[in-house]
Amino acid sequence: MPGMGAVATTFIGGVLAIRQGLGLPIGALSQMGTLPMAAEAGGEIPIKNLLPLARLEDLVFGGWDIFPENMHTAALKAGVLAPATLAHIKADLERIRPMPAVFDRACVRQIEGPHVKQAGSKMALAEQLRDDIRSFKAANDLDRAVMVWCASTESYGELAPVHQSLSAFEEGLETSHPAIVPSMIYAYAAIREGVPFANGAPNLTEEIPALQDLAAEAGVPISGKDFKSGQTMIKTVLAPAFKARLLGVSGWFSTNILGNRDGLVLRDAEALKSKQVSKLSALEQILDAQVYPDLYSDMYHTVDINYYPPRGDNKEGWDNIDIFGWLGYPMQIKIDFLCRDSILAAPLVLDVALFMDLAARCGLTGLQDWLAFYYKRPILAAGARAEHDLFRQLAILQDRLRTLADLAVPARGVSGEMAVN
Amino acid sequence: MPGMGAVATTFIGGVLAIRQGLGLPIGALSQMGTLPMAAEAGGEIPIKNLLPLARLEDLVFGGWDIFPENMHTAALKAGVLAPATLAHIKADLERIRPMPAVFDRACVRQIEGPHVKQAGSKMALAEQLRDDIRSFKAANDLDRAVMVWCASTESYGELAPVHQSLSAFEEGLETSHPAIVPSMIYAYAAIREGVPFANGAPNLTEEIPALQDLAAEAGVPISGKDFKSGQTMIKTVLAPAFKARLLGVSGWFSTNILGNRDGLVLRDAEALKSKQVSKLSALEQILDAQVYPDLYSDMYHTVDINYYPPRGDNKEGWDNIDIFGWLGYPMQIKIDFLCRDSILAAPLVLDVALFMDLAARCGLTGLQDWLAFYYKRPILAAGARAEHDLFRQLAILQDRLRTLADLAVPARGVSGEMAVN
Amino acid sequence: MPGMGAVATTFIGGVLAIRQGLGLPIGALSQMGTLPMAAEAGGEIPIKNLLPLARLEDLVFGGWDIFPENMHTAALKAGVLAPATLAHIKADLERIRPMPAVFDRACVRQIEGPHVKQAGSKMALAEQLRDDIRSFKAANDLDRAVMVWCASTESYGELAPVHQSLSAFEEGLETSHPAIVPSMIYAYAAIREGVPFANGAPNLTEEIPALQDLAAEAGVPISGKDFKSGQTMIKTVLAPAFKARLLGVSGWFSTNILGNRDGLVLRDAEALKSKQVSKLSALEQILDAQVYPDLYSDMYHTVDINYYPPRGDNKEGWDNIDIFGWLGYPMQIKIDFLCRDSILAAPLVLDVALFMDLAARCGLTGLQDWLAFYYKRPILAAGARAEHDLFRQLAILQDRLRTLADLAVPARGVSGEMAVN
Amino acid sequence: MPGMGAVATTFIGGVLAIRQGLGLPIGALSQMGTLPMAAEAGGEIPIKNLLPLARLEDLVFGGWDIFPENMHTAALKAGVLAPATLAHIKADLERIRPMPAVFDRACVRQIEGPHVKQAGSKMALAEQLRDDIRSFKAANDLDRAVMVWCASTESYGELAPVHQSLSAFEEGLETSHPAIVPSMIYAYAAIREGVPFANGAPNLTEEIPALQDLAAEAGVPISGKDFKSGQTMIKTVLAPAFKARLLGVSGWFSTNILGNRDGLVLRDAEALKSKQVSKLSALEQILDAQVYPDLYSDMYHTVDINYYPPRGDNKEGWDNIDIFGWLGYPMQIKIDFLCRDSILAAPLVLDVALFMDLAARCGLTGLQDWLAFYYKRPILAAGARAEHDLFRQLAILQDRLRTLADLAVPARGVSGEMAVN
Repeated sequence: MPGMGAVATTFIGGVLAIRQGLGLPIGALSQMGTLPMAAEAGGEIPIKNLLPLARLEDLVFGGWDIFPENMHTAALKAGVLAPATLAHIKADLERIRPMPAVFDRACVRQIEGPHVKQAGSKMALAEQLRDDIRSFKAANDLDRAVMVWCASTESYGELAPVHQSLSAFEEGLETSHPAIVPSMIYAYAAIREGVPFANGAPNLTEEIPALQDLAAEAGVPISGKDFKSGQTMIKTVLAPAFKARLLGVSGWFSTNILGNRDGLVLRDAEALKSKQVSKLSALEQILDAQVYPDLYSDMYHTVDINYYPPRGDNKEGWDNIDIFGWLGYPMQIKIDFLCRDSILAAPLVLDVALFMDLAARCGLTGLQDWLAFYYKRPILAAGARAEHDLFRQLAILQDRLRTLADLAVPARGVSGEMAVN
Repeated sequence: MPGMGAVATTFIGGVLAIRQGLGLPIGALSQMGTLPMAAEAGGEIPIKNLLPLARLEDLVFGGWDIFPENMHTAALKAGVLAPATLAHIKADLERIRPMPAVFDRACVRQIEGPHVKQAGSKMALAEQLRDDIRSFKAANDLDRAVMVWCASTESYGELAPVHQSLSAFEEGLETSHPAIVPSMIYAYAAIREGVPFANGAPNLTEEIPALQDLAAEAGVPISGKDFKSGQTMIKTVLAPAFKARLLGVSGWFSTNILGNRDGLVLRDAEALKSKQVSKLSALEQILDAQVYPDLYSDMYHTVDINYYPPRGDNKEGWDNIDIFGWLGYPMQIKIDFLCRDSILAAPLVLDVALFMDLAARCGLTGLQDWLAFYYKRPILAAGARAEHDLFRQLAILQDRLRTLADLAVPARGVSGEMAVN
Repeated sequence: MPGMGAVATTFIGGVLAIRQGLGLPIGALSQMGTLPMAAEAGGEIPIKNLLPLARLEDLVFGGWDIFPENMHTAALKAGVLAPATLAHIKADLERIRPMPAVFDRACVRQIEGPHVKQAGSKMALAEQLRDDIRSFKAANDLDRAVMVWCASTESYGELAPVHQSLSAFEEGLETSHPAIVPSMIYAYAAIREGVPFANGAPNLTEEIPALQDLAAEAGVPISGKDFKSGQTMIKTVLAPAFKARLLGVSGWFSTNILGNRDGLVLRDAEALKSKQVSKLSALEQILDAQVYPDLYSDMYHTVDINYYPPRGDNKEGWDNIDIFGWLGYPMQIKIDFLCRDSILAAPLVLDVALFMDLAARCGLTGLQDWLAFYYKRPILAAGARAEHDLFRQLAILQDRLRTLADLAVPARGVSGEMAVN
Repeated sequence: MPGMGAVATTFIGGVLAIRQGLGLPIGALSQMGTLPMAAEAGGEIPIKNLLPLARLEDLVFGGWDIFPENMHTAALKAGVLAPATLAHIKADLERIRPMPAVFDRACVRQIEGPHVKQAGSKMALAEQLRDDIRSFKAANDLDRAVMVWCASTESYGELAPVHQSLSAFEEGLETSHPAIVPSMIYAYAAIREGVPFANGAPNLTEEIPALQDLAAEAGVPISGKDFKSGQTMIKTVLAPAFKARLLGVSGWFSTNILGNRDGLVLRDAEALKSKQVSKLSALEQILDAQVYPDLYSDMYHTVDINYYPPRGDNKEGWDNIDIFGWLGYPMQIKIDFLCRDSILAAPLVLDVALFMDLAARCGLTGLQDWLAFYYKRPILAAGARAEHDLFRQLAILQDRLRTLADLAVPARGVSGEMAVN
């Protein structure tokens, strides 16, 4: 994991606690989900019985961060898991220390840390990361690895020529082109090492053709972007309901208050823009104004994010939705979601890691459209139509898991050591 | 329509206004909905192009109420449609006057009205209703009719021996058995006249074997119960989302404030019980505690309804939901729905009327499971499994419409005069 | 303290923790408040510097409960103070064990406990309580004591002849008259022992002439009723604001969800009625419909309380207020107060105990009107006008403290051992 | 009135409607308020009986706007008063047409209008405004006038040398100094004409020494700034409550959504800054961190304003307040105020106009501290301490009115024609 802050420590600490029976992996389909099968195939069958997913006991954790603190210190600082929980897994957490990070202040302007790599070029940084991956696998005697981006949101960026082809990109790495940002360097290193890459933030990364081409060429699965954990998840549930009932929407105002490192990073206008673009995209696709112009063509949609330290990781998302019904009469819905950012994200990291690993083992390469369920702004293979409706995304995910279950039957038992790093 | 208060006047006034181009039938699938068809069949096709539904221009409205006021006066009193809207359709509304109602103070204890039928027995009341239906059809030169219950909630009742068979029931009508309540007398009259019956309130009515048997025998479709308009609709959307994401639910507290006649009726503990039973049923089915005991077996669910005159028909539903995620950490969601009861219900009346009429013309009889989308507590044919998830209900509705579209193809153009009364 | 559940353990545990420097007595005027004095008198002066209040270090705690658990066990069960906090004061808490309670299932129908007194008559129960008080003072070598009711709400009751005079009341004690409820027996015992009595619940108690007469005769201060901690406190702040701005109020709907023992007790309709009467009284006094009939004479006010276990002591109060302004145009305010019942009540127990003790030492007897600031429904001396406006109540409290400060000047340093039991 | 949009049309239309008996001047102390007098002086006496305020029937309305539409058209566009209300007063409203405005795009960047004055210098613009005032008074045969700023918020500005003295300011008017903004030119013209000036927006205006000196010299009362109508009004009520109860505050997050011209203007960062500075000031003064450092020194306070067209003038203010009590345990309060900006502001315009006129007639000059009740950020005479607590502000207002009532007794009946323009 690039980025070992609140999300990463909650994920790691959680898995360690679950292994000791201190809690359940609530929210993780890979652990607690079932797959509806035909009655003759047994009805609802636990996903983990159907598919040869890596087991929690076999996971080994590692990553990079701009602060050198071990995972126990970092978890206490993040303030998500209770000190009492952390006390039980202290030794294991302390053993995990981040490697120095690739970091660029120009991309993440609100924070700075001492634990960063130095090198003559971005290509040299990529080489260091590849070394890190190889060393980590060797040191832990691992067969496989997955990289999940758990770090902060980078400044907003758009596709540039340097992103358009692998050759331009690699030349850009050599010349340290400014449009190549850390998340791309990490993804490049991962793919070059045959490690599946998943992007939990709204960074450009896997959206650039250079990395998509590389993933195809190298036969490595990639997916993204931006974990759909709280407010957007609820949106992608309510919007389909309005459409199902043909209720019009004239406005949707969303605001968020959060006080963790993520919130701090988003104080920067450019990082905020990355996040907003990601958060705004779902509604328009679901509420198809082309098919229902009378209902959705005049919708005013705005998303606001505010840094608010008193609450720490305990984010609050407040939505006001202006809808209209019969003859156009207006109504309002207000939703206040007192959530916990990292508690919602941690099981998504686990699912994505295990499913990406499964994909790699089943020979799936390039963009994994079927994981759209996990992302605010799914990046899909060329030609595919974005699907934001949570329930349709779930159906797509289940279909694919059913297919993989059939494929996987002979492969059962193969599940070996696997690292999420 | 038995009951010509807020819902009925909003429905009738709305259809009249829509005919004059003063507004759109927002919320009605029969008017604005599309059916996803295979690409070669044309993609998204408007439902009303696919199916020979009765046309709005052909509808004639009638009903019964305990107050004799015409529909213009009743609509002003209901306070839902704006006086400016009503001014445009005043003449048409004034022309519609309710027939005297079958009413029993024991069933609806909070209101009383002067415009009620008198007769020697409940069977005699049923005969009067049948006469009303015949006269209404004759006077308006109608081919067909549908009855949709738009009146108040009756006191809570349970199945009694008098409900168990048609013969017992008809004997009960003759002896004016106290367990036979007005909604059952209306439904009996409708079915005996070959008129489909739909139940918009949580009354027992179509749930009793006597009327189900009669409907089967007479070849008449029936459906119910309790229109799913506001808070419950949102619940049947959020609950599937929690299940999709495997988030646990420890508590769900729902309260409602409303100040219309419905709210007044629900001040009575027995009527309230009818409504609460109806409102409580959905969550348990969706959040399947058998499959997910760790997530849903300890859920505390309560629904409260409060009469609050200042707001009239502008109901407010407030929900607090206590959920838990990764390792059991708690989170909260609060939803405040500032809705308008009758604005949400009116398009459901229209859809149900047109679809019940279509069902009758296509030869469907007895309980119409496929209309579960419209009801808080769908009453299904024996052996069928209740489905409360709004999206699955929609899929079932669409499947059936697709089938009927195939059946209906030769029937196109047949749509003639039709009355909703 | 009669009743050693959530409020009492939070109060006791809090004082113990504060003594050890583990936290601050936030919310307690007696500890953190200042008194605005004339500039020449020093400006804002800490109340505890001005008045010879008993010191936290000198307090000794005791009480009665229907469960025999020590205060550490009871505090863990109450779930208010964090286990980590309780760990620091475990030994001190364990040392405090409740005496057997006077209890009557007819008054508190939802709970039952094993630790209750038995006696031939209610007078005999009163004698047992008086013995308890004397023994407690002797055992702890105390000069003074104060009794603060921290137990559950009793069933609603109205004034009966047996309450009207001390002689009738004492005869009723002898004959165990059913209209004499436990809270009255406790208050009687306290006053007879010269111990000031304060009533934190909405019970009738100090409202009956018999006890008022006894207090006057015995020269003992009494006060009540029902601590004004959360929702009502906010109401007595907003209502004066509406009046200050001359905004009309057409409706005020309040609902509460709580899952502690208090919530359980209030499931009983009669206990609920006691609480509702107490909660409803404030608005009418503040929003004086006689002076402003156009603004407040049609207000619809309702208070609902719901038992909801998932949240424990973390009560939630939700208010919807319908107001109207210029030309009568309507507006709405919604307030959601995620509070903690006992955290809000504990400092009120402390203040009331110390101020009642002070009153006794200053020779104030009978009903203490100046403590209205602390109560939902202040019981005042005959002829006094109820004052519910929080700010006016505060001004009255401050005035009285200023007067007592003048009186008390010579008495400084007198503060000796004092028990709150 | 400079600015004849939503607030001005609601104020004017309201007064016209009230004159016709179509509604009540709810929210206006001058019309519906009482003054608590000593019992022997009659108890609660209506303010308008005690003081010789100008009468509603005597008011004549005029002003300036960048759009030339008459007040009926402007009121329809503003969408505040219902068309049905406006229909009754259409003729009177149509007769009122704004004069061309002094406008500077640099100060109000989000809107532009055609109806603006042209002149060689800012002094020449001031002369045109003075001519307008004289002509208006002559044309309507008026004795007196008051100017109340009802226009948009200007960009944030700070005190510059040109504002520091009257001579520098007048020189700046001649040379059209960029730091002299329209609101200052209006105020200058008003004061020079002996017309009291009140500032309903957060503009710098009456805060500059040049205009304060001029007001003193010319013997004209001035006051401001920024009407305290909705969210801030509630804040200045809750904050004193927290202090009264000594509850700590760790954070206060306020957001607003509004869709009127005001909201549009505030999309501009500089205008937004003016507003935010105004909105942020109250809390710190009330929650005196110097006296209560443990409770209020770490408060994080932020105010956000969002343009959201779907709601028009029906602003919504949402506040989240993080408080803490006994031992520091955290609690939360959330407030959703569905208000109507102009409905709340209109009675303040009326009160301020009548009280400023009264002040002038009583010989009060310069800054009128006693009107702080009406303003978000009261500008006070040198040396005075800001008072934001709504209840203390009310007490100060009442004291002053009582004093003026004594002064005014001989002056009763003098009230003649008076114009608010």
